[in-house]
Parts: sequence; C-alpha cells; structure tokens
Amino acid sequence: MSILVVGSIAYDTVETPSRSVKDSPGGSALYFSIAASFFTQVNVVGVVGSDFDLKKLPLNRPFSISFDGLDVEEGKTFRWGGRYYEDPNKRDTLFTLLNVFENFKPTIPDYYKRSQLVFLANIAPALQLQVLDQIDKPRLVILDTMNFWINGYRSDLLKVIQRCDVLILNDEETLELSEDDNIITAGSKILKMGPKYLIIKKGEHGAVLISNNTYFAAPAFPLLKIIDPTGAGDSFAGGFVGYLAKTRKYDVENMRKALVYGNIVASFNVEDFSFKKLIPLNPEKLEKRYKQYRNFTRY
Amino acid sequence: MSILVVGSIAYDTVETPSRSVKDSPGGSALYFSIAASFFTQVNVVGVVGSDFDLKKLPLNRPFSISFDGLDVEEGKTFRWGGRYYEDPNKRDTLFTLLNVFENFKPTIPDYYKRSQLVFLANIAPALQLQVLDQIDKPRLVILDTMNFWINGYRSDLLKVIQRCDVLILNDEETLELSEDDNIITAGSKILKMGPKYLIIKKGEHGAVLISNNTYFAAPAFPLLKIIDPTGAGDSFAGGFVGYLAKTRKYDVENMRKALVYGNIVASFNVEDFSFKKLIPLNPEKLEKRYKQYRNFTRY
Repeated sequence: MSILVVGSIAYDTVETPSRSVKDSPGGSALYFSIAASFFTQVNVVGVVGSDFDLKKLPLNRPFSISFDGLDVEEGKTFRWGGRYYEDPNKRDTLFTLLNVFENFKPTIPDYYKRSQLVFLANIAPALQLQVLDQIDKPRLVILDTMNFWINGYRSDLLKVIQRCDVLILNDEETLELSEDDNIITAGSKILKMGPKYLIIKKGEHGAVLISNNTYFAAPAFPLLKIIDPTGAGDSFAGGFVGYLAKTRKYDVENMRKALVYGNIVASFNVEDFSFKKLIPLNPEKLEKRYKQYRNFTRY
Repeated sequence: MSILVVGSIAYDTVETPSRSVKDSPGGSALYFSIAASFFTQVNVVGVVGSDFDLKKLPLNRPFSISFDGLDVEEGKTFRWGGRYYEDPNKRDTLFTLLNVFENFKPTIPDYYKRSQLVFLANIAPALQLQVLDQIDKPRLVILDTMNFWINGYRSDLLKVIQRCDVLILNDEETLELSEDDNIITAGSKILKMGPKYLIIKKGEHGAVLISNNTYFAAPAFPLLKIIDPTGAGDSFAGGFVGYLAKTRKYDVENMRKALVYGNIVASFNVEDFSFKKLIPLNPEKLEKRYKQYRNFTRY
C-alpha cells in the first residue's frame, strides 16, 4: 500500500562539534521517503528550485519513490542551516530561506489519491490542509509539526490536528501544544483535540505511544556515536508509517511494532550526515537491528 | 535470603514547588529497607542520634527489618535539606548536617554476616570498605554512590567499585566517573573498573542494565504527578536487590526482571513525601503495577 507524503525538500547546512556540511540534500519529505521506501512505494508532493538535481541522489531503493508530484520552479530550493552541540537534543536554527517554498501550492497527481496512508510532514498547517482538501478521506492521516506552527499558527494547526489519526510530536512540543507540564496529562489533553493516537519522541530516550486507553513506551536503540541528528524525526516517521503500510494493520498492537521500526530506522539515520547511512541501508540490516533491539528490551 | 544494608538514616527537609516538609524521616538505608522488605528480611547497619524514634515509623512490613546493627549515639541524627523544581530531575542540596554520622564506625552483628546480599548505600567509600572488610565475600555486593564521592574521594571509591558486583549510578554520575560523553562507551569503561553489571538510572526515562556483552533498557512507569523524588534511587535499589534476594537467581535474565521491580517500587515512592506511599504499599499493589508495566512495554 503506497504512502503519500507532503513536505520539504531542502539543501541543509549543518554544523556539529566534529564536522560541518554545506548544501547537503535534506528536507522532511526526502528523509521520510527514503526511510519509508524500505517498506513500500512513496509518492512525494513538494517543490524544488531549478538548482536541485534529484538524479544526484543514488535512490536505488527496495521500493520506488515517485516524484510526479514534485514542482520544479524557477529559483532556488528551500535552504535550512542548523547547529548541534555535544548534547544532541540541543539545536539552534541558524537560517531558514524559504525560496521557492514561499509560493508553493501543492497539487496532487490523480494516481497519488489512491494512497491510503498520508504523511503530512512538518510544513505550514495551511499547506497540510490544502493537501487533505484534495484527497478523499484516506485510511490513515499521520501528522508532524513543530514549535513554530504551535506558537504562531495555532488555529490552522488545530484544524489539521482535528483531521489526523496519528499526531507525532517531541516532548517539548507536547508540553507546548497542551500547555501542561506532565507528559501523561498533556497527552490526554491532546487526544481530546482529535487524533486517536499521539506519539511522543524523546530523542535518546526513545518514544511513547498514547491512545485513550493504552500506553506504550519504547527505549531508543543505544548508539556509540550520534553524528548528525538532522532528519531523525522524519526517518522515524518513515519507519513508522512504512511498516504500517507494508503490514496493512492499524490496530494498537501493530502501531507498537511500527513505532519500534521507527526507532530502528532513525537510529541508522543519525549515525552519519544527510542520507549517508540511510542510502546503503537494506532490509537485512534493518531486521538485524530489530532483533538486537528485541533482545535489548525483553525481560 | 536476607540483605545487609549500610547507609544513612536521616531527617530530611524537602521543598517542592507544591509543598514542603521539615525533619521528615528519610535516609538511604531506610528508603532501601522499606522497599526491600516487600521481598525479604533486611538487616540495617547505621547510626542515629538520641532524637530519632524508630517506633514512630509504622513498620508493619511483609518481612522484618532488623535494627540490631543500628548505633544510637548521644547527639543529633544526620540531617539533609533539598529543593526540587518543576523539572523533577533538578535538585539543589540546601544543607547537609552530618551530626552523629561524623564519627560513625559501622559494626556488623554476627548474624548479619550470613546475609548473602550486601547493599552499600550512598555513604563515604571509606565506610563502605569498612563494612566489606568485616564480612566474608557475600554472594553479591551492590554499590550506590554519588558525584560528591566521585569527584572528591575517587581513589577510595575505585577500591569499593573493584569489590562490587553491581554498580548503580545515574546518567550524570556515569559520565563523570568515566570521563566520557556517551552513556554506552562510558558504561564499557566503568565495567573495566571491576563490576560485572552497571545500572544507569535515568529518572523519568527509566533505567539501563549493562554488562560486558548485554544491554537492557527499561522505560519508567508513567506517572501523572511526581510529588517528591527523594529516595527514588534508594527505593529503586530496594526493589532491585529485594527481588534478587527473593528469587535467588543472579543471572542477567533475572537481573532484568529485578530492574523492572526497582522501577515499579520507585514509581510508588515518588508519588508522595517521605515513606507515605511506600508504607501502605503491599505485594498486591506491586504485582498490579508490574502487570500494567508489562502491558506498557510489550510489542
């Protein structure tokens, strides 16, 4: 079952304590698609400038990624710059240049509308709504967002939240959106806003899945070295939604397994810059780490 | 199988954002003993001043706590004062009055020496060594410590670490002791100092068990409200060592289960001040929460 994703495609400039990269391919839609393409076909909606060369990405994936929904506009591609510290949970945004993203109007190719799973990556809630308005109600809508939209575009965001099935936030965003100071009570408040499930990402401490009557906590895969956390959340979402699409079961039992796959895929992603660790990944490496993870968590 | 514990018995003054208590009974040996007494008999070694009235503690436990190894000295009991914030992982020590603890020389009653499990709670490494010197090699020595001893009494501490089987630290202490910045590589360094197992407590993010070739991560039990984190680490240790003593198996499989019981007991402890939530606890409540926990973590 294919997945439709709308999100950013970007050139990222990333500084870390050990190294830096300039204009490296990134963006939420690309991180998500590359991660999800281990499990199923992914249909991308987004925009790039004339300076972006998709052919330079060695996208030899287990499943295909369609770029038929990608606008190529005269001008420059979206650019983001960020700095990370010894504590990989800390990040400063150095610059955000919207460029061709500024006037982006998502249009969905007809055959994309058959995608039963829709991932709305972290972009303006107004754009996420434009996508939902162009498709029939899909089987499952999974939504990502960030502080910027929570604080500045709350009313638009609440409209999208009401129409999503699974909302993915990190712990800070959870407290901000709910205006609460405890993750558990914050989760209950957010479920009242519409979604059936809330996933709270806690970085090196793993992730939590909350619904009205269930709770599931999954530690992170332990890593000797975190090189570049950029795209961790999007590759997590790619593993999560990808596994759901592949297995076609949307009950809470399968959501738990999908969340673990999200953890596993994200753990590979942060082991190097950009897509360096994600591109040569394969289902065998994924299964091997999943088995290790099971061993790390059973009792 | 009984447990010998040496540690502090104290009057604590605790300030939290919601409430404060003055001269409330506490101390590592008491928190540990009350927690472990759900599983087995506990033999306490420690010192109090003439102002401490053990009879005021309603110690109607599933198993007995022996105070035959408790010195009662003329003078005042050890006192500790601390302040907690909205973020329960943050704590300031306001004062530490050693009082009768200053000249404490632990002496072990003969029948205590049959205890096969020894818990060295967080006190001066020199005192921990004095205890180990008075007993034959027990089946298992479990050691707790803190930043103060890591930074100021490192050479004494390394001697105790060499003689322990299980070392319990929190994440900050792990990085400080190893002088590393990654929990996993830090753990490997610490195992080279002597212990077969290292437990790393991560507060609301749970705990991790590391040995030379195994890794186990257990999330924390989710709580709607954390009232007073004092004694969380000691009640965790009480649940952990208590379960090992009860089941008499010291392989890594059983250590994992024991760690989960540590998490569960600690989750009750922090739900109220002092021993208020620990005293009325019973094996049924404990098993109920263990079953909930299993449900929160299985996939």
